Amino acid sequence: MTERPLLPLLHDAPVERADAARNRAALLEAAGRLIGRCGGLERVTMEAVAAEAGVGKGTVFRRFDSREGLMAALLDHSESAWQASVISGPPPLGPDAPPLDRLLAFGRSRIEATLLSADLIRAAGRAGTRSYAAYSFVAMHVRHLLTELEVGGDLPLLATALLAPLEVPVLEQQVRVEGFAVERVYAAWADLVRRVVA
Amino acid sequence: MTERPLLPLLHDAPVERADAARNRAALLEAAGRLIGRCGGLERVTMEAVAAEAGVGKGTVFRRFDSREGLMAALLDHSESAWQASVISGPPPLGPDAPPLDRLLAFGRSRIEATLLSADLIRAAGRAGTRSYAAYSFVAMHVRHLLTELEVGGDLPLLATALLAPLEVPVLEQQVRVEGFAVERVYAAWADLVRRVVA
Repeated sequence: MTERPLLPLLHDAPVERADAARNRAALLEAAGRLIGRCGGLERVTMEAVAAEAGVGKGTVFRRFDSREGLMAALLDHSESAWQASVISGPPPLGPDAPPLDRLLAFGRSRIEATLLSADLIRAAGRAGTRSYAAYSFVAMHVRHLLTELEVGGDLPLLATALLAPLEVPVLEQQVRVEGFAVERVYAAWADLVRRVVA
Repeated sequence: MTERPLLPLLHDAPVERADAARNRAALLEAAGRLIGRCGGLERVTMEAVAAEAGVGKGTVFRRFDSREGLMAALLDHSESAWQASVISGPPPLGPDAPPLDRLLAFGRSRIEATLLSADLIRAAGRAGTRSYAAYSFVAMHVRHLLTELEVGGDLPLLATALLAPLEVPVLEQQVRVEGFAVERVYAAWADLVRRVVA
């Protein structure tokens, strides 16, 4: 938990009134249920979310502005849950594991989370990338682990280099276009990490 | 030149009639002159290119379909020139240099070319990436050099990992948002390459 103050958490900054936060959570849960039932995002419209949550369409628009805004909020919601598992979840992704084990667990978990969220990331309309806050979190986490591993060199840029192959366009090309197994993609990333750390 | 048959060159496939190719080149040169005069892409419209080349607007639309199509053609044009310097230009980027020197020269040249072309890449409307043919060329070149360097491991994925930090969104974030010097970005990439090759 010592790294906590270093990390720009997605939900540190905005202060919401308790009832606003509850309404927001209820709408995101309704959207989550819709995604679960539809098995995709096509039918998750502002209207459908309003109906599922039992509120007017206007409420959903006031809260998220647009469908892209709703998708971005859903993405932040799932990123927050993932960040929590990095910060305080069980090892080796969470604390209390050696830093190399944590770094490898981070890569595996990030590949899986990114592929799961790829549709959401695209629908959030940010040209295939997550928010800058989400990126800062992973960049600082990797940098922190490289420091613990006593890796020399330009750590901010080395961290970026380790993260670049985990971005949506790269992973989708490998897994969905070229048909590489996720396990192979992870093994190659772990190999890269071991070379950098050696 | 032994690697030539391996590489998917951008302009190997399409066969154009000589006069069509001449007209196309004249339009691209006219667009190039406009970019040179304006110092940016905003004023490079289909109309302006037609006027500069002394042809009707319809000719430009028939040739490139849309402004995005024109931008993509300009990008292919500059990629082709860059590919030629990799295939048959002077060392160390071209042949007749040791493979590690070639790989490092490739990285430096690619960073510069990508930052120069970034506006064009965005204007070509392909979500910040070059064409798949352009990507295949660099992927196969890096894989070829890693083979010559007798690097073990999953070379297609290692090549992807070395190329991912050279993509537009990563370089623009580092150089244009965070203000890192291009020299620093190159030095970090060279460090990564040396760790992978070691």
